[in-house]
Amino acid sequence: MTVKINLPHNNSYEIFIDKLNELYFDTKVVIVTNPTVSGFHLEYLKTKLSAKELSVVTIPDGEKYKHMETIESILEHCFEKRLDRKSLLIAFGGGVIGDMTGFAASIYQRGIDFVQIPTTLLSQVDASVGGKTGINNKFGKNLVGAFHQPIAVHIDPSMLQTLPKREFGAGVAEIVKMAVTFNKDFFEWLEQNDIREEENLRIAIAKSVETKANVVSQDEKEHGIRAALNYGHTFGHVIENETNYNTYLHGEAVGIGMMMANAASVKLGLMSSDEELRVKQLLEKYDIPTTYKIKDIEDFYEHFFLDKKSLDNKIKFILARGIGDCLITNELKKEDVIDVLKGFSCD
Amino acid sequence: MTVKINLPHNNSYEIFIDKLNELYFDTKVVIVTNPTVSGFHLEYLKTKLSAKELSVVTIPDGEKYKHMETIESILEHCFEKRLDRKSLLIAFGGGVIGDMTGFAASIYQRGIDFVQIPTTLLSQVDASVGGKTGINNKFGKNLVGAFHQPIAVHIDPSMLQTLPKREFGAGVAEIVKMAVTFNKDFFEWLEQNDIREEENLRIAIAKSVETKANVVSQDEKEHGIRAALNYGHTFGHVIENETNYNTYLHGEAVGIGMMMANAASVKLGLMSSDEELRVKQLLEKYDIPTTYKIKDIEDFYEHFFLDKKSLDNKIKFILARGIGDCLITNELKKEDVIDVLKGFSCD
Repeated sequence: MTVKINLPHNNSYEIFIDKLNELYFDTKVVIVTNPTVSGFHLEYLKTKLSAKELSVVTIPDGEKYKHMETIESILEHCFEKRLDRKSLLIAFGGGVIGDMTGFAASIYQRGIDFVQIPTTLLSQVDASVGGKTGINNKFGKNLVGAFHQPIAVHIDPSMLQTLPKREFGAGVAEIVKMAVTFNKDFFEWLEQNDIREEENLRIAIAKSVETKANVVSQDEKEHGIRAALNYGHTFGHVIENETNYNTYLHGEAVGIGMMMANAASVKLGLMSSDEELRVKQLLEKYDIPTTYKIKDIEDFYEHFFLDKKSLDNKIKFILARGIGDCLITNELKKEDVIDVLKGFSCD
Repeated sequence: MTVKINLPHNNSYEIFIDKLNELYFDTKVVIVTNPTVSGFHLEYLKTKLSAKELSVVTIPDGEKYKHMETIESILEHCFEKRLDRKSLLIAFGGGVIGDMTGFAASIYQRGIDFVQIPTTLLSQVDASVGGKTGINNKFGKNLVGAFHQPIAVHIDPSMLQTLPKREFGAGVAEIVKMAVTFNKDFFEWLEQNDIREEENLRIAIAKSVETKANVVSQDEKEHGIRAALNYGHTFGHVIENETNYNTYLHGEAVGIGMMMANAASVKLGLMSSDEELRVKQLLEKYDIPTTYKIKDIEDFYEHFFLDKKSLDNKIKFILARGIGDCLITNELKKEDVIDVLKGFSCD
């Protein structure tokens, strides 16, 4: 199965969803990975991959290492291997690996190519489309980075067999996100099918990637509709930040964030309580968390303003409009947001 | 005087060469500068500039601070001031300020706009055109960075009155570079006129910027002809690196580098000894160094391979072909290069 991502400025590329093919590159190649992925899949990858000169750089596993020092260690490896402007990086891992490898590729000698081989469901359906790369810092998530498109993405669903159940669920959350905001038919299909089954999984990945690709093709640099992909993220980022990125997986925080956004939709009459419940049930089918206890509501609210999606000190919210459509707005009243947050408070 | 830089992908912009106009920006603006420039010109700039919210970040003066930590300090200031995606950075200083401000702008929230107000002759004629941004690291110069075009460049030649004579000469070296490689008429005009005179200076800046703009318009990402702008730089970078960036100004090292490249041109019959002498005399008219004593020729040669312009372990040389034309080649034989270097050795 192949999905073509159409982008302007010669940035188009293809996503291959299948058992990994033989890959050969007539350049120096550096695989960027972490010990977990490497332990499970590196030998398999190496049987499929050949290059003029191949090396591997292993970086620590986890969101908390997604910072500039890790980027510098990737770059250092590349300089030591004397990579030139024709060389290639391969991101071999989940979203963190993808974001960092892409960012390192975007600034190494002012930009070299990279290929993604995502190994988690979340990175397969989400991080593999869009060209957003970056790192976190003390001010928040993904605040430093670049738009840098891969030249190809290879998704091998068989690699998901080693994925922990929670991480699988975190990936499903992003799939649900795509369906709720853009594709009612896909949402209903998800209600009726179990994507833990192999063939359904392939279909769900392809459908999700296609939906996202369609959005990104229209708006590569997020001047408009692309912002809708942040459904659940405005809230989710604050949850991740408040819990120091070590309580919830990104997709889990997005799951809770979608429920918060839906509560706002219901309050504003954009969504029925029944639709809200259907989203909740779909998330819970995959054991994705849907509740959260906010300790300090004002503090939670203040956190929004550090998110880079806030222009002119207004917060941009993405709200589902029923199922299969959405609304981007920065006109939500503070008291309405506070009201929604109270539904998730400790009090 | 206005020079239009035509680039694909909506990246075109204008260079204004004149007394600074009144500038107003309806966004948050951060001026990036250093203590030297700030001491001479910041008050003047502030009388011309207004913005929705204006702040200044001052970074240490000098090439040796052109590294990632300084970028991070610029970014930190921007986060503290809560710059958003519509905000603007202004590079107010020489080439180092321009390269770092542009790089910081390119990665802040995956890219925001920046404007250049270059205050040295070198940055006015060279760094203001081309969109190359970046930093140095222990492996060499400008090895990490991005292509990021400014949205406008304002060149006020009156700011050069405070420029030390050596720095003026370093700028002239880049002007001579443009003339030797691309414009015979301009070279002859430079031989006949003194650009220390005000009106000549304006003409020389405009002519140099136009010539470079013409090259960059044809080849923004340096896949071909743009590499010719590195005339003198392949050698110059090694000289800077060998002398730890504290003996020669960049333009001075390029001046010496041009003499090395010309020696190769003469050896290969691409340039007459008379032409070589005319370039030397033009450089010396502005007290730009033209000689250098290499300590270890093999070591000097090895240094080329760390330069990012070397593909497939071949070194790309830019050689003048007479005056007003040039040749890009990676086919120079090692023994010929060594022979040329011997002309600049201590032995």
